[in-house]
Amino acid sequence: MDIDTIELIHGEGGKHTQQLIEDVFYKNFNNDILLKNTDSALITLPSKNIAFTTDSFVVNPIFFRGGDIGKLAICGTINDLTACGAEPLYLSAGFIIEEGFLVEDLIKIVSSMKEASKISKVNIVTGDTKVVPKGKVDKIFINTTGIGVVNGYKPKNIVCGDKVIITGTIGEHGTAIAVDRYNLKVKGHIESDCEPLNYILKCLKDYYDHIKFMRDPTRGGVGQVLNEISKQCGLGIHIFEGKIPIRQEVEAINDMLGINPLYLASEGRMIIVVDKEVSMKVLEDLIIKCNLKASIIGEFTEENQFVYIENDFGGKRILTPLEAQILPRIC
Amino acid sequence: MDIDTIELIHGEGGKHTQQLIEDVFYKNFNNDILLKNTDSALITLPSKNIAFTTDSFVVNPIFFRGGDIGKLAICGTINDLTACGAEPLYLSAGFIIEEGFLVEDLIKIVSSMKEASKISKVNIVTGDTKVVPKGKVDKIFINTTGIGVVNGYKPKNIVCGDKVIITGTIGEHGTAIAVDRYNLKVKGHIESDCEPLNYILKCLKDYYDHIKFMRDPTRGGVGQVLNEISKQCGLGIHIFEGKIPIRQEVEAINDMLGINPLYLASEGRMIIVVDKEVSMKVLEDLIIKCNLKASIIGEFTEENQFVYIENDFGGKRILTPLEAQILPRIC
Repeated sequence: MDIDTIELIHGEGGKHTQQLIEDVFYKNFNNDILLKNTDSALITLPSKNIAFTTDSFVVNPIFFRGGDIGKLAICGTINDLTACGAEPLYLSAGFIIEEGFLVEDLIKIVSSMKEASKISKVNIVTGDTKVVPKGKVDKIFINTTGIGVVNGYKPKNIVCGDKVIITGTIGEHGTAIAVDRYNLKVKGHIESDCEPLNYILKCLKDYYDHIKFMRDPTRGGVGQVLNEISKQCGLGIHIFEGKIPIRQEVEAINDMLGINPLYLASEGRMIIVVDKEVSMKVLEDLIIKCNLKASIIGEFTEENQFVYIENDFGGKRILTPLEAQILPRIC
Repeated sequence: MDIDTIELIHGEGGKHTQQLIEDVFYKNFNNDILLKNTDSALITLPSKNIAFTTDSFVVNPIFFRGGDIGKLAICGTINDLTACGAEPLYLSAGFIIEEGFLVEDLIKIVSSMKEASKISKVNIVTGDTKVVPKGKVDKIFINTTGIGVVNGYKPKNIVCGDKVIITGTIGEHGTAIAVDRYNLKVKGHIESDCEPLNYILKCLKDYYDHIKFMRDPTRGGVGQVLNEISKQCGLGIHIFEGKIPIRQEVEAINDMLGINPLYLASEGRMIIVVDKEVSMKVLEDLIIKCNLKASIIGEFTEENQFVYIENDFGGKRILTPLEAQILPRIC
């Protein structure tokens, strides 16, 4: 592109729109299905059983330690498909851009999307671009919608004794966003955990008969997801505080902010509810084969119908559903 | 909902988000596939050959004569699928809402989506809601992404003599938006032509072997679409001005505004390029079976490689590709 900023004319559907699409989007998302001059992608799927999911990304700031809105938009939708056991195959990308947005920044974002799409082997096959006048959108919003193929996994009834696995350290995405948004001076290394998780399905597929439920703890974090599961199945969840993988830096920053990291978003973690019989095997595979810092953090119980945490000294406290606003625009 | 406005907490992923989804979205979009508490819709498709398309809607104003952003978001994506001969089946809906937005207005918009979805028999099966602080988005933006099933239609090489059909009067959507945005005092009845067009496929399917190309003339209007087709196939297009169906009110308002309605968006019309042999039959079916004000407006020619219009007195002028901004945010 021989211009510095995106202007209204780039959203008009004429030759400037074509040029933007050509120079920025096609160049990066290049694949056999993404065709010029058609509004729809034509796809032959490997199966008729699909999962279909959508997510709009409005994260602030758009560039943050460990990622940007583009990477997040790819990972978020891939992980939603992964959570229902579907192999993510194709994505759409819809951009809403503020007049005056730097072309340089758009290229950075689109390059991140290309990179995340390459790592996850999921192609962006169709897209849309709108430009709105200055002040009518905060820089850039991106919608991604994904299609995945369902390959034998189905959620099942959760029973007393089932275990809760988390695939890695929690709250890093939310913490990274907070640090960059509020310009916090922090020691130590902290960055978003934002990552496409579809590769873990390979590791889990031998256990599909024993996996009861999966969900990525994004908005509302682990705390909110566990509360939703507890409400749905009518069982309590007993969480062992010492088993929750969390980085010291994340704890320290959230202590300072007065935020409970259990309610902070992760964007590269999965909560997996699994039959206790195979739980150790699943954990082992996640750690060894997928190289993850996974942990069994708790189990389902009939004792009560809420989520509670037991600390290393036997003290218990209730982890309530999310009531108030913690940190808006984390995704 | 027992509240008047959408607040940031409705986008946090907690119980307020759940309540909004329950009270507004599920109540209206209710269908067997749209399930609570899952991020993805699980679908069994009738075929492995699909079309996949996305569109973000940022129209201003959000309510206009003949429709609103909700109706437009359903029609736009359905029509993009229709344009590639795919039977639209499923839609996702992603909402980005400004803090303080009236719940009453959201319900109006969602009801329009429900209505358009009912008419077109296309279900909204998955969704997402984000709320951003006041001033960070202009009221509400909606992304819809659609899946359709490809049923025997393929675009073909356009040759000299092929005819251009438009399925109805042009430029009404763009004109309606202009009238409402700029509060123009106009006489006569004018409203957006916004309509789901998938029903025309029934009428066209007998002619799939002879239909070369379809496109709905939205951004950039008929003028821009014809220029793109001409560029792609390397042929000129000879348009007969007298054959272009246009309402008097649309002509009068655009005369006043100094806008050429050929560049104004329609949101319920299709441009169809068809083999001259069957063109009259296709036209007849569109008029009689589909009850449309369709017209053959021109034909492809080898004389030159641009689009030109001949008026009733034999005068010719070139219809150039869209250069400047006509009317932003019409969809």
